[in-house]
Formats: sequence, C-alpha cells, structure tokens
Amino acid sequence: MDLKKTIREIEDFPKPGINFKDITTLLSNADAFRYSVDAIIKDLKEKDVDLIVGPEARGFLMGTPVAYGLGVGFIPIRKPGKLPGEIESYEYGLEYGTDTLEIHKDSIKKGQRVAIVDDLLATGGTVEAATKLIEKLGGEVVSIQFLIELEFLNGRDKLSKYDVNSLIKY
Amino acid sequence: MDLKKTIREIEDFPKPGINFKDITTLLSNADAFRYSVDAIIKDLKEKDVDLIVGPEARGFLMGTPVAYGLGVGFIPIRKPGKLPGEIESYEYGLEYGTDTLEIHKDSIKKGQRVAIVDDLLATGGTVEAATKLIEKLGGEVVSIQFLIELEFLNGRDKLSKYDVNSLIKY
Repeated sequence: MDLKKTIREIEDFPKPGINFKDITTLLSNADAFRYSVDAIIKDLKEKDVDLIVGPEARGFLMGTPVAYGLGVGFIPIRKPGKLPGEIESYEYGLEYGTDTLEIHKDSIKKGQRVAIVDDLLATGGTVEAATKLIEKLGGEVVSIQFLIELEFLNGRDKLSKYDVNSLIKY
Repeated sequence: MDLKKTIREIEDFPKPGINFKDITTLLSNADAFRYSVDAIIKDLKEKDVDLIVGPEARGFLMGTPVAYGLGVGFIPIRKPGKLPGEIESYEYGLEYGTDTLEIHKDSIKKGQRVAIVDDLLATGGTVEAATKLIEKLGGEVVSIQFLIELEFLNGRDKLSKYDVNSLIKY
C-alpha cells in the first residue's frame, strides 16, 4: 500500500518554510490506518516486547493501537505536570531553549523490553529523550518505530545504538 | 474483570481536594487495557460506526485502539493551533474562563456515523464541545464512550440526547 498518498502535505505550517506532514488523513483512512499499525506490529512481533512507550500527543495515536494489537501495555511519556504519580524527568536541548519530558517512575521494571512508537522522526530529540527516560528506569529499548521519517534531518544519527524502523520516508 | 482495581487514585492532583483517577495503571496492564478496548468495541459493533473521534490528548489513548479494532478511521479533536489543515472551532465555558477545541473541516462527511471515545466523563464540557463540532460538519453522533464516569458530577445531563456508555463508575 502506498501510504505516502494518504499523508497530506501542508506548506508553511507551523512556520514559513516548513512542509508539514499531516498524518490525520492517514488516521481517518481505515485501510491506511490498519495497514500502518499492522506493519509496526509485524516488525515488533519477533522482538519479545513487554511494553510500548509513546510520547505525547501524536505518539499516543499510533502507540496505543500497536500495544493493543500486540497484546501488551502502553506507557505514556508526557510534558511536565501532566502525569499524576511520582515521575522521572529528562530535559533536552532544542534549537532554541530546552524541553522536558516525564514518565511515571514505577511504569517500567528493570529488564523490561520496551519499544517506542512515535509518528515522526525529525531531528530525533524527543525520542532520544524517551530512550534516556526508559533506560533511567532500567528498561531496555529493543526497537523504535516511526510512521514517518524525514531522512534529510538525519535523526537516525542520534539513535544509532537502536533498532529503528520507519514506514514512510521523505 | 474488576477494572476499578487497575485505576490508581491520587489525592490532591492537579489541585487540593481532587482525587485524580489515574488511567495510566490501566493502560500499562495488558489485560485491563485489552479488556477495556474490547468492551467499547463490543458496544459499538452493532451501531454501524463510520469514524471514531477522540479529544486530545487522553482521548487518543482509548480512541485509536477502538478505531483500529473496529476497522474504522480516527479523527482527532485538538486544542487551538495543533491541526494544520482548515479547521472548524468551538469555544465553550469552563468554571473560570473558556476553552476552544478544533477539528479538521474535511474530516467528517455529511451523514457519517460517528462515535466519540474519551477517557473520563466529568462535567461533560469537552465532549459536549466535541458533539457540536461533529454536528457542525454534518456528522451524526451515534454513541459516546468513556472509560470512567464521575457520576456525582452529573456530566450525563449535558449529553442526554445521546447514547452514553462508561466502563467504570465512581
């Protein structure tokens, strides 16, 4: 299935010069949505995954159906102040300034095998932060799955230690 | 399955006096997560649903696996500025001030049968706004599904026109 045809490109969003890849047109297409989730599940099937982790908010969109289909639990990574329990946090650099992500401290047990699922690999900063949080808790990142990869941003360089898979490449 | 046992209650979050219902402990429990999604799918099965709509961000957590399991598409409702395409918006009142939600204008076609899925029915304001957006686009809200309902807040009163179902009641 040519998934790229189901992605809508929107010029100058959120800022001038950016050609935004809109995944909502894929999600609303029942066949494309199912095909994408199934492709990620197929790749994870042999990796003996205990948990799926997805970063807020678009990581929830693909991560939870993958967890459901694989028959494992889902752990959200969120922006500060959203998770009610005891948290572990990680601050990382952006082009301008910093950002922080949080995970529940008790959400991953030492030695658990975790796959990260997110919508888009751009510079890789968010998912690199997710790997740090998972490893702080003692989890092992056994795979990282993206719906879309922007290859010209070289985000894979930050994730070279890991098994990285993406379904749609630009 | 006693789903309530898989919900963690956290006192005084996000403000003093609120006993927060933390669904992350349900999501991370593979059996409870699957059971919850399957229960919503079962209830929707006979309702001839074309699309699932879920409000950002916790509505994504249950809404996308339900859409995947039912074999239909998913439409996100988001906070202002997040959706890149042409949007329809709806402003609604909160205890203090107002909030606005947005949906892509072309996401629902006239006459499509839509089910809303969200994590929590409290006062019902968010989901009432979601019904307005769906109806503005010509969609028909055939069911509203919640993981949790806080019955003492009487959110159902705002949704009395609709088929409303919740899995866990407080």
